[in-house]
Amino acid sequence: MTQPKHYHMSPEEFRHWGYKTINWIADYLENVENLPVLSQVKPGEIRAKLPAIPPQKGESFDAILQDLNQIIVPGLTHWQSPNFFAFFPGNNSAPSILGELISAGMGVQGMLWATSPACTELETHVLDWLVDMLGLPNQFKSSGTGGGVIQDSASSAALVALIAAREVAKADTSQLVAYTSTQGHSSIEKGVKIAGLRRENLRLVEVDNNYAMRPDLLQKCIEADLKAGLTPCYLAATVGTTSSNAIDPIPELGAIAQKHNIWFHVDGAMSGTAALCPEFRWIHQGLELADSYCFNPHKWMMVNFDCNCFYVKDRTKLIKALSIMPEFLKNQATASGEVIDYRDWQIPLGRRFRSLKLWFVIRHYGVEGLKHYVRKHVALAQEFAQWVSADSRFELVANPPLNLVCFRHQGGDEVNQLILDNLNASGKIYLSSTKLDHKLTLRMSIGQATTEKINVEQAWQLISSGG
Amino acid sequence: MTQPKHYHMSPEEFRHWGYKTINWIADYLENVENLPVLSQVKPGEIRAKLPAIPPQKGESFDAILQDLNQIIVPGLTHWQSPNFFAFFPGNNSAPSILGELISAGMGVQGMLWATSPACTELETHVLDWLVDMLGLPNQFKSSGTGGGVIQDSASSAALVALIAAREVAKADTSQLVAYTSTQGHSSIEKGVKIAGLRRENLRLVEVDNNYAMRPDLLQKCIEADLKAGLTPCYLAATVGTTSSNAIDPIPELGAIAQKHNIWFHVDGAMSGTAALCPEFRWIHQGLELADSYCFNPHKWMMVNFDCNCFYVKDRTKLIKALSIMPEFLKNQATASGEVIDYRDWQIPLGRRFRSLKLWFVIRHYGVEGLKHYVRKHVALAQEFAQWVSADSRFELVANPPLNLVCFRHQGGDEVNQLILDNLNASGKIYLSSTKLDHKLTLRMSIGQATTEKINVEQAWQLISSGG
Repeated sequence: MTQPKHYHMSPEEFRHWGYKTINWIADYLENVENLPVLSQVKPGEIRAKLPAIPPQKGESFDAILQDLNQIIVPGLTHWQSPNFFAFFPGNNSAPSILGELISAGMGVQGMLWATSPACTELETHVLDWLVDMLGLPNQFKSSGTGGGVIQDSASSAALVALIAAREVAKADTSQLVAYTSTQGHSSIEKGVKIAGLRRENLRLVEVDNNYAMRPDLLQKCIEADLKAGLTPCYLAATVGTTSSNAIDPIPELGAIAQKHNIWFHVDGAMSGTAALCPEFRWIHQGLELADSYCFNPHKWMMVNFDCNCFYVKDRTKLIKALSIMPEFLKNQATASGEVIDYRDWQIPLGRRFRSLKLWFVIRHYGVEGLKHYVRKHVALAQEFAQWVSADSRFELVANPPLNLVCFRHQGGDEVNQLILDNLNASGKIYLSSTKLDHKLTLRMSIGQATTEKINVEQAWQLISSGG
Repeated sequence: MTQPKHYHMSPEEFRHWGYKTINWIADYLENVENLPVLSQVKPGEIRAKLPAIPPQKGESFDAILQDLNQIIVPGLTHWQSPNFFAFFPGNNSAPSILGELISAGMGVQGMLWATSPACTELETHVLDWLVDMLGLPNQFKSSGTGGGVIQDSASSAALVALIAAREVAKADTSQLVAYTSTQGHSSIEKGVKIAGLRRENLRLVEVDNNYAMRPDLLQKCIEADLKAGLTPCYLAATVGTTSSNAIDPIPELGAIAQKHNIWFHVDGAMSGTAALCPEFRWIHQGLELADSYCFNPHKWMMVNFDCNCFYVKDRTKLIKALSIMPEFLKNQATASGEVIDYRDWQIPLGRRFRSLKLWFVIRHYGVEGLKHYVRKHVALAQEFAQWVSADSRFELVANPPLNLVCFRHQGGDEVNQLILDNLNASGKIYLSSTKLDHKLTLRMSIGQATTEKINVEQAWQLISSGG
């Protein structure tokens, strides 16, 4: 028997199954509202439906799509449901999906400029666009000493900023101190761990009544550390904390960082997108004091995960911290010094063409369209907060600056946990929780692309009737 | 004027442009052979064609696709060309593209089991499958103390292994020593830098005539370090080095690592896929001595970037090194201890549903189909090596164990550089180079999914006629 020449799909088959896949997605997104938001499966239930051994012979694509429906979909928590109010949103959108599709179809790899110049240049260009779109300081543009790059997540952005800070610092790693608030993201602690700083040298600075970092207490911490012979090296502030969307006071924190020569990283993962609208740009006030900044179009700007935009004021510091030049990567373009090689701006070597989906989204919606959704979500959240305020059984835990509402039932942790569990088990909406002032607090995060007023109204009916 | 209700594409528009995008990819992949493999653009050429300011109003998808053709495609280096012989391959394939498409379309996020159980369980399941498919030691299966996870790259895999090794070690980071060979990947040096080990504490152990690490010299290094009061903690061996595809002697290295209680990481990024075929499984001999192992389906197994499969023998060590449990991520499933939360196995918090494309590929090709391509590429490379051997102007630099042939013209570095530059400027093929024994060496890497014998023959004609 002669072996078949190849097992690849023919172009005709690819077109056929490609259309079917597009239809699958269109159907999925049209119907996602009707599916239980939080998957109702039990641990092990999905695996139990999968064959224990892999197929020796290839199977039809039809069989794969059938299993997708029967096995995989029941095991999804539907992030694209308009009734998804948990964590922060992780939006996709039609142009983003198609941008990701083309990126996969091209299959180019942008570790070096030379390995696909367009992959690097489009990324630099679109990240410069975003500086203007969000009204960020010009220092982050590639035309000066700075520049932007796409990372997979705000966690990785915070980590590479910390690595750069550590390399710039003039002290042994064991002597370095990092600062964030008690409300700072867990990725800061994880980054400190990865970068090899001592865990006991991470300071969680106390916050004010709005859960924002207190500059006076930061200053005290730094002074105590200096007195103890330690070297303050990294301050991570947050524009929109995960728990409550608190906005740290960037101007005051930045001034302290500058005075003590501390790398100042600002994380606007969720809320940075709000700065598309001039009326919300106050969140970035003082950002010219930052050495690095990031926000996630993969949260609130219609770009499917992963797409974190990370900016540095001085790219040479980042590159110096992360560059290794082995023989096998040497090439004329790199040697000329005229190009950016983004491998030196990130932890992995290889990289996908992620700026395509970002470019597609900006062009499809236009700045105007993207602003529309930010305004809609903020307005819905503000309205939801009013309903909470007006109901004496509930209390607002903080004034929502943008589109996240933290609130709780007055009945205490047990009642709130029960409401949460009931809501999530119902499959009708999905909410997550946090603790603020040691009390269980419900988070209503309104930012899913297709969430309309009706979804928020239904959610409030469910919540206020006890889940 | 009333504001439009939304700017999203309608489902009908999405279907329409989705089909067009599928057609775009089908056309691109059908014609990619005719495009210059290495992009011929100059630095800045792509950016110069892009508008300086982003669009305020949304644009038609048609306009976006036009710019894709006119601006972006000329700036691509075509990794999917059958004439791409540079670096290592970065294959995509029809089922992988469609798997990535569905992942983008679902837009779920698998940081926790609860945030999409299927995203976690399919990943665990398929990574267990691969242990059987490659004949890896059972210790890497999730059913015991180990388990697999998808990382973005072998760089990140090597880094998280190093972080785990550092946490396990009973000494201060400044005292820790890491080992790889002079031919080890640059990601090891980068990982050492990121993890905060001292640069002077990375040992590059000398290699034998086949460019494989010498166990006797490793042993000497370790003894010298112990004598100096340092703590050996991490050994990174390679199954198929980047420069020459050398296979480090895993059994001997593993025995040394075990004796000295050193974390033993084995990187099979490129060549691991060969183990699909029993006749190539010798490369993994001794792998039961490894604490961690990885290979990249995104290189030679038809899964588009990114998809690195990373395995550990003892998952608790990895999780302990990377886990942080903030309040906002607490949930019933995690608390039950019955589930895997993959955020604790990696650097970022968020994660895409990457196992979908891996599952699609395995099911579409079957193990049989995937083996077919490995065998084809190895056979082509062995034949190419014979042609080089038979031509007195050229020399083989190493016996190619699998599908990478290292060779050079006898005329010295200048002649080889000229050949390389001519070939790459011609756009007909794309080759990259390395240095072995301080001499410029051409690398013929044969692994692109659609490369046929005719492509390899044409390449040799071009090379042997001086580029």
